[in-house]
Amino acid sequence: MAAKNKIAILGSGNWGSTVARIAGGNAARHSNLFDAEVRIWVYEEVVNGRKLTEIINTEHENVKYLPGKKLPENVVACPEPQEAAAGANILIFVLPHQFVKGLCAKLVGHLRKDAFAVSLIKGVDFDEGGVVLISEVIRKQLGVPCAVLMGANVANEIAEEQFSEATIGYRDEQHAQLLKHVFQTHYFRIAGAPDVAGVEICGALKNIVALAAGFCDGMGLGNNTKAAVIRLGLVEMIRFAKHYLENVRDATFLQSCGVADLITTCYGGRNRRCAEVFARSQGAKTFEDIEQEVLNGQKLQGTLTAKDVHAIIKRDGLLERFRLFTSVYEIAFCGKPVASLLEDLGKQELNMNGDIS
Amino acid sequence: MAAKNKIAILGSGNWGSTVARIAGGNAARHSNLFDAEVRIWVYEEVVNGRKLTEIINTEHENVKYLPGKKLPENVVACPEPQEAAAGANILIFVLPHQFVKGLCAKLVGHLRKDAFAVSLIKGVDFDEGGVVLISEVIRKQLGVPCAVLMGANVANEIAEEQFSEATIGYRDEQHAQLLKHVFQTHYFRIAGAPDVAGVEICGALKNIVALAAGFCDGMGLGNNTKAAVIRLGLVEMIRFAKHYLENVRDATFLQSCGVADLITTCYGGRNRRCAEVFARSQGAKTFEDIEQEVLNGQKLQGTLTAKDVHAIIKRDGLLERFRLFTSVYEIAFCGKPVASLLEDLGKQELNMNGDIS
Repeated sequence: MAAKNKIAILGSGNWGSTVARIAGGNAARHSNLFDAEVRIWVYEEVVNGRKLTEIINTEHENVKYLPGKKLPENVVACPEPQEAAAGANILIFVLPHQFVKGLCAKLVGHLRKDAFAVSLIKGVDFDEGGVVLISEVIRKQLGVPCAVLMGANVANEIAEEQFSEATIGYRDEQHAQLLKHVFQTHYFRIAGAPDVAGVEICGALKNIVALAAGFCDGMGLGNNTKAAVIRLGLVEMIRFAKHYLENVRDATFLQSCGVADLITTCYGGRNRRCAEVFARSQGAKTFEDIEQEVLNGQKLQGTLTAKDVHAIIKRDGLLERFRLFTSVYEIAFCGKPVASLLEDLGKQELNMNGDIS
Repeated sequence: MAAKNKIAILGSGNWGSTVARIAGGNAARHSNLFDAEVRIWVYEEVVNGRKLTEIINTEHENVKYLPGKKLPENVVACPEPQEAAAGANILIFVLPHQFVKGLCAKLVGHLRKDAFAVSLIKGVDFDEGGVVLISEVIRKQLGVPCAVLMGANVANEIAEEQFSEATIGYRDEQHAQLLKHVFQTHYFRIAGAPDVAGVEICGALKNIVALAAGFCDGMGLGNNTKAAVIRLGLVEMIRFAKHYLENVRDATFLQSCGVADLITTCYGGRNRRCAEVFARSQGAKTFEDIEQEVLNGQKLQGTLTAKDVHAIIKRDGLLERFRLFTSVYEIAFCGKPVASLLEDLGKQELNMNGDIS
């Protein structure tokens, strides 16, 4: 008989800890499907004079990244990733994307034969060839299948058990069904789409649109304009995904990973907020200033992605097809006035044939 | 040679007057396409001791419904609809939907042979057979083709010339191209979709979703939940449209009439606002109370539509397929607690095959 399914969570920030509450609860609840023990890799640090892993394993709370919320007692913190992954076949990647390669290097050769991954990491890389999905990095480096889970998922709200949804992008349907049991609760509803690339790319591109939405807010414009900008941004997300990735499905953009995550990000979220500050400053502040001021020096995802996307569409002669992406880049980095966003969008003729791309 | 295209606007409220600014400007600008004179039917009333038509024709301002905004001087107000429509082949219907039948009755027999209509009226009727589109009422009563124009179009924001978009739903492509010239400006961008029914139904169904969004706001829930509710509402809009209307196209819901208008309505708008008040009152106020309090006795579109939609999906045994619509109805009219919205949505299994309906 095959070994029981066993879950490992790689990463223990705000979102990772929230996911540990969910996956830990489900592992205990679905005892027919899962080994009850869920290990979580915790980057070791000292909090109030104690090791964070020790606090988690005795107090059952990640006091640093998800204070005030208990973790199930079957969630066990490990300071080494190999130890966390030992014996597990379901590997949940939920850490900042710059650490993925280093983590995978440590895991190679330590995985179960039937192991597969699911990436919760929002963001993409770019190289000379174009888009590099994080799920592809994991798949290639570890030699295991990799699904993704994305959606309108503000970690703290889900930790409060507020109703939410997410989308699993998958290639292997059995993996998707198993992952549904890992993640779904009465307040966190899971849909699936056989479209890893489509599900994953939304989470990166939405941040460019959020900058445009923040510019509208900073100019004091109404809901009309903002809704138009969000929609035109969604159209460019679809166009970009279909141009640069294979087998992307239209319906994916109507999933939580698409339109819902886009809405959340364009009304809440740090990219929108910093872009609003940028627009209000009327050229007095750069995004670097704002990152210092508002984010304590952390980098915004949206401006990084806008730069990467601009490089690739410029190289490919596609600037005219991506007026919103281009305009956001030029406003953020080339000193163009914020109001030019709407002038640029106002110059394009929209399709009269009913197709959006 | 055929007579020149000539525009008549039937209705002169806030949106009708805003449209008169746009269409009047375009008639003058595109003198190769249009007769410069644009007549607008104004329901005669006396404002500050003067007739409203007289004020409009001398001051070039609808001081009652769009104060502070000048109308182009080629826009001429007429107190009788037959007079407004005389010689016109492009009839823009922009009045409350309860007055459509009476208006059409007056116009029958007074129209140019090549006349066609475009309806800007959001809302639908229902009869024993199901959905009755306003554009169908106009088409049948007048015996002329009828297109529609819908979108995220808050009249005052467009009167301020803030950037916005709209979608023309059409059957006749030449009419659509002509209408694009009637409506498009640098700040008001027009797309087309060969899908009158899909474009039109969105404008009615969105108001049910806005009630659900307002319930979330009233419960103090975050952007996560609200985005999930908006998305699930969009899915039910698509499902309803495809079930009850013919040849509805998926891409239509990604137009301004679909996702953009939905977003605007779920973040601004009176349906959302009244639903928030309802939720906060925790059962102390009915929607009738709130209509008195907040809207001076005007009726909310959303609750009316929720009731009509509920009757038809109940008759057809489809309540399970429309959990959000059903839940909104039961909360608004059957005393169910507001929180049951999310319990109801949490009970449905979402598709794992990537399709949304």
